[in-house]
Amino acid sequence: MSQFWSDRIHQLTPYTPGEQPKDVQYIKLNTNENPYPPSEAVQQAIIAASGDDLRLYSDPSATDLKSAIAEFYSVDITNVFVSNSSDEVLAHTFVALLKHDAPLLFPDISYSFYPVYCKLFDIESMQIPLTDNFEIDIKDYPKENGGIIFPNPNAPTGKALSLEVIEQFLQAHPNSVIVIDEAYVDFGADSAISLINQYDNLLVVQTFSKSRSLAGLRVGFAVGNSALIEGLERVKNSFHPYALARNAIAGATASIKDVANFDKNRQKIIATREKATTALEALGFEVIPSSANFVFAKPPQGFEAESLYLQLKNKGILVRYFNAPRIDGYLRITIGTDDEMSSLSRALKEIIT
Amino acid sequence: MSQFWSDRIHQLTPYTPGEQPKDVQYIKLNTNENPYPPSEAVQQAIIAASGDDLRLYSDPSATDLKSAIAEFYSVDITNVFVSNSSDEVLAHTFVALLKHDAPLLFPDISYSFYPVYCKLFDIESMQIPLTDNFEIDIKDYPKENGGIIFPNPNAPTGKALSLEVIEQFLQAHPNSVIVIDEAYVDFGADSAISLINQYDNLLVVQTFSKSRSLAGLRVGFAVGNSALIEGLERVKNSFHPYALARNAIAGATASIKDVANFDKNRQKIIATREKATTALEALGFEVIPSSANFVFAKPPQGFEAESLYLQLKNKGILVRYFNAPRIDGYLRITIGTDDEMSSLSRALKEIIT
Repeated sequence: MSQFWSDRIHQLTPYTPGEQPKDVQYIKLNTNENPYPPSEAVQQAIIAASGDDLRLYSDPSATDLKSAIAEFYSVDITNVFVSNSSDEVLAHTFVALLKHDAPLLFPDISYSFYPVYCKLFDIESMQIPLTDNFEIDIKDYPKENGGIIFPNPNAPTGKALSLEVIEQFLQAHPNSVIVIDEAYVDFGADSAISLINQYDNLLVVQTFSKSRSLAGLRVGFAVGNSALIEGLERVKNSFHPYALARNAIAGATASIKDVANFDKNRQKIIATREKATTALEALGFEVIPSSANFVFAKPPQGFEAESLYLQLKNKGILVRYFNAPRIDGYLRITIGTDDEMSSLSRALKEIIT
Repeated sequence: MSQFWSDRIHQLTPYTPGEQPKDVQYIKLNTNENPYPPSEAVQQAIIAASGDDLRLYSDPSATDLKSAIAEFYSVDITNVFVSNSSDEVLAHTFVALLKHDAPLLFPDISYSFYPVYCKLFDIESMQIPLTDNFEIDIKDYPKENGGIIFPNPNAPTGKALSLEVIEQFLQAHPNSVIVIDEAYVDFGADSAISLINQYDNLLVVQTFSKSRSLAGLRVGFAVGNSALIEGLERVKNSFHPYALARNAIAGATASIKDVANFDKNRQKIIATREKATTALEALGFEVIPSSANFVFAKPPQGFEAESLYLQLKNKGILVRYFNAPRIDGYLRITIGTDDEMSSLSRALKEIIT
């Protein structure tokens, strides 16, 4: 508390990220990082852009990166926005496109940063409960709204909506911006980017942190109608025009171009997820079918999620436990390597049996 | 224009950065970049942090970097805030500390981003004219205010205030946050960081972009009373907790530790500035004595600043011309290498004589 703080700051409850232990001995299955490193090509591109030219500002429009994304998704470069992490892309989106008179709508269970942005930017919101099966039901979303945002697949449930349902949203709310937050889409859902030329109210947000193994580089992007993108550019250019470092632009560009490595790693993670799901079910867990690089799992009868989280931590394995209504009976477990998931299964077996 | 934009977005006039030509043939004296590259130690630290671990999130509190800054300036780590560029540090500062009922004050001639932040964040402001000599006069700053911000040295004039005058500001406005934006301080002014333990209303903002040759890495920081820093952390952690990339933290940390290279380069730039000033004066320019890595210079009688800017551009030299009241008769010229400044003098001589 300080007399010098602006009014709004007193009311903020910042997002709590997953633990980032400095003791690296943990098996880290708590922040949905990719277990596989970025490819050699990506690392080389970053290193090549980390020389003497770092004395010079980066390209404020990050044209190389936007072009690569546009080509990868067969859209125009004016449909692409890039910035420093998808959190920042989301923040700019809330400011540019989601602050209106009617409340912004999002599921009660979804990325826990959404209510934080609403507080920071003074945006009225309404949280729409997921169904008892943790489903987003379009019938629950009122006509009167200032925008709709949800992750697809949803977090932390891992459940994905089909493009058919997303089109129903877009058609039912033609005067609202619909933001699909696709942080995890590459692990088993269909991207709505294929719909942006049909729907001028659709913005798709993605990140390099998960499927592209670049959580430590901080790059995110959005794809949508060029008028929406221009709104984002206005905010970004009123905030920090040079959002991305030279080597971040270079590394992200190389990542988009390295399709083979991208496909290989996400397929490995999907395969490991299916094995891990089977192993958890064999231990009595109820595992929600996941389209993401994590599973959301309910411990067997007689075991508390929080206690399991703590016991796993004692055994050197970090998973994520949310002390929040409706989801405090679950653990969110990031999919690591096959070996890491076997360690998890062994540790859980020791605790449970 | 779009029906989907939030109201505020329609009103934004984003900051216009200096030209960043992709044709690298220009001698770039327009964006106050450092002509000398970051040291080998800095480049190696960035490369070492650009390997497999980029798959992992960075340390959200950037403790290594904060510690290095705290040690360099002999302050506590709780006095240090770091984020992605000093533009972002300033943006968070406007939100966290400078939005109050009374208007924020800043000079009419200063960093042209300040009014942009006021528009973006809906902050009432009052621009206080510099004196006819382009001086900040404390007598012109009304008691009733919601904060005061100015660059020291000022931009684009290059004129510095003494710490004595800054203390007068701090004492005259004990209930206002005073932000000293020290982007250029290392080229000839005294940092107010030495005052932060005496004044709880002082925040000092600095950047790695100029004196530390890292414009392309995007790192900035602030130093001040821990309550002010906590206000900034609240905003940052409600915006994007992982603000800095792993390799940005590593590079900036190495830069702070490489004191010898830092001192060598800024001394070289100061020496070149003095030579360049003499050369410009010999050509009939009126040069404001500068404490920065640029000079603000008025062409000799009979020559228009805008026309000189365009003619220099034709000759492959970029300088900065501001089409704005009171300063449209000047050119802002970044201090490059001795060779670059000689090229500038030769080109100007051809144009003028």
